[in-house]
Amino acid sequence: MEKVAILGAGAMGSALVTPLVHNGHDVRLWGTELDDGYLEAIRAGKPHPRLGLVSGAGARLFASHQLADALDGATLAVLAVTSTAALSVFAHVLPALGAGVPVAIVSKGFADDGVGPVRLFPEALAGLSGDGRPFVGIGGPCKANEVAAGWPTVAVFGALDGALRERCAAAFGTDLYVVVVTDDLTGLELAAATKNAYAIALGACDGLALREGHPWHNLKAALFAQAIGEMRLLARALGGRDDTIIGPAGVGDLEVTGLSGRNRALGELIGQGTPGDQAIAMMEQSGQTVEGPAAARAAWRLVSQLEGQGSKAQAAAYPLLAALVALLAGQGDPATVLASLLVSSRRAGLAGSA
Amino acid sequence: MEKVAILGAGAMGSALVTPLVHNGHDVRLWGTELDDGYLEAIRAGKPHPRLGLVSGAGARLFASHQLADALDGATLAVLAVTSTAALSVFAHVLPALGAGVPVAIVSKGFADDGVGPVRLFPEALAGLSGDGRPFVGIGGPCKANEVAAGWPTVAVFGALDGALRERCAAAFGTDLYVVVVTDDLTGLELAAATKNAYAIALGACDGLALREGHPWHNLKAALFAQAIGEMRLLARALGGRDDTIIGPAGVGDLEVTGLSGRNRALGELIGQGTPGDQAIAMMEQSGQTVEGPAAARAAWRLVSQLEGQGSKAQAAAYPLLAALVALLAGQGDPATVLASLLVSSRRAGLAGSA
Repeated sequence: MEKVAILGAGAMGSALVTPLVHNGHDVRLWGTELDDGYLEAIRAGKPHPRLGLVSGAGARLFASHQLADALDGATLAVLAVTSTAALSVFAHVLPALGAGVPVAIVSKGFADDGVGPVRLFPEALAGLSGDGRPFVGIGGPCKANEVAAGWPTVAVFGALDGALRERCAAAFGTDLYVVVVTDDLTGLELAAATKNAYAIALGACDGLALREGHPWHNLKAALFAQAIGEMRLLARALGGRDDTIIGPAGVGDLEVTGLSGRNRALGELIGQGTPGDQAIAMMEQSGQTVEGPAAARAAWRLVSQLEGQGSKAQAAAYPLLAALVALLAGQGDPATVLASLLVSSRRAGLAGSA
Repeated sequence: MEKVAILGAGAMGSALVTPLVHNGHDVRLWGTELDDGYLEAIRAGKPHPRLGLVSGAGARLFASHQLADALDGATLAVLAVTSTAALSVFAHVLPALGAGVPVAIVSKGFADDGVGPVRLFPEALAGLSGDGRPFVGIGGPCKANEVAAGWPTVAVFGALDGALRERCAAAFGTDLYVVVVTDDLTGLELAAATKNAYAIALGACDGLALREGHPWHNLKAALFAQAIGEMRLLARALGGRDDTIIGPAGVGDLEVTGLSGRNRALGELIGQGTPGDQAIAMMEQSGQTVEGPAAARAAWRLVSQLEGQGSKAQAAAYPLLAALVALLAGQGDPATVLASLLVSSRRAGLAGSA
């Protein structure tokens, strides 16, 4: 039996209680200062405000000031806060976290201070930890509300250490939260971070459909394939593998993120004609954190950095990412930008394979 | 300028008039005996019954008895009939078709007589032709109504001969019907045929959602990734390439086929609880030809044949295809069959990449 401390009581942190409690572990759910309302709902047996359903049953709940109690004797930790807070929360948690305790990462995004190198979370968190602690990435097509409800889901767990992978698969995996494992932590984290960005483009096609009164399915599907092509290229540039991108962590996660969620919703606003910067502000004003814009900008910086290092990554090979960064900055009409992208992606030779 | 004879005035045959007329070609649209109503609608400037919009403007129209006129001097032919009729229509057309005139294939499916080897269309049609005539496959995420309307689309053209590929790209390609080319005719045709089968599974998830009153997005996305994995494995077994499956012809075409269309609709009926055989009969009774069930059965026969030949293809590596064949035969409850598939796909090591 594991003693699992889930750090962050938002949607995914709370959702992961379901498979862990099912497997009989000692599950502790710790909330940050922003999570008091979530813990209150769980305690009262009311629907979690972010999930829309009752969750967290069977977990012991800890408020932000009870961090030491939550981590006492923990054998596994799960970092489940929003990506922009991942590094600062981890730094806050670190002194109370036992030496060598593995940390599984649910937060999806890049570590990007806007100045230094853009990094994936396992590398950035390892730098903060500084003690050789192992990290496990969690990706795959997992909407939190379906995980919480125990509806069929595939999750991908990535870790360099084979024994740790199997330990996590045994701890989290059930017949309905099916865990597949990979040693390609890099490809997994890259896919998890960038799909939030690319899902905005898919949502933009839904927005165009609303604006124009007819579906843009061919465009949406072409951009889906283009997104996968660009994710694959960037994963390769970092040492990740095609297998990861073509599997549930890449193709699967982009599919589910394009079906629903906040990044898709942001894209829909943009497709309907709201300039990107205004659309982001609208989402924020309604209390909805959207991780895709930061991921798009970080990925674009990463491409530039790789290019500066003489890598094969070239900005021209990422026309969809470039278009996204422009649209998010409020530049250009989405119909024109996205349709003309098909022509430029053809020129870049990415969409085809001749 | 090409003289292009489109053989079949259904949805995609009529739709391809749009880019070809845009490029100034001499376009002839020939209808089979079943297409009289379509030609009549086009002639009257009324919406095409299968497209729901006015199409075909600028093409010369030929009824079934005018085949020789339609083909007179043709420099390119496009076979655009439903997959079950592709071989018989081609055999009928062949005597009137000039020697060496290339044939582009829009029909998507397998050549499968239920007894002999299952083949892809280029091989089967070449066997009928018997004169070394070149064939061009057309795939990619292309809903016909959007192609007809001139909305942004990527199409993938596959041919073994490089000069022919470029000639077709020049003939068909516009800024809104963007043509990418590949020499992987095998992967392209395999993807085009199997996506109709796998889209039924995606539709089944939509049907489960209607039946249960909540989305099954995680399952749908997991099955999407599983479908791509199986398409990739089968393409490899035939000599096709990963690039094709991960690009617009594979990932893109499955995405668009899962967004709408008759195969998805059939799956939705099955997901809602209608036994597969009854659901197929219901679609047929309402006049809707659905190509996915035959494709699923043919793909399953193909897997068995490859296994019999000692290929690496193994039936156990295609759990989604096996589940589809069972559901289409009316066997099993879709929720149980598809959810338990996630566990079996994990065991088969396909969904993951460890």
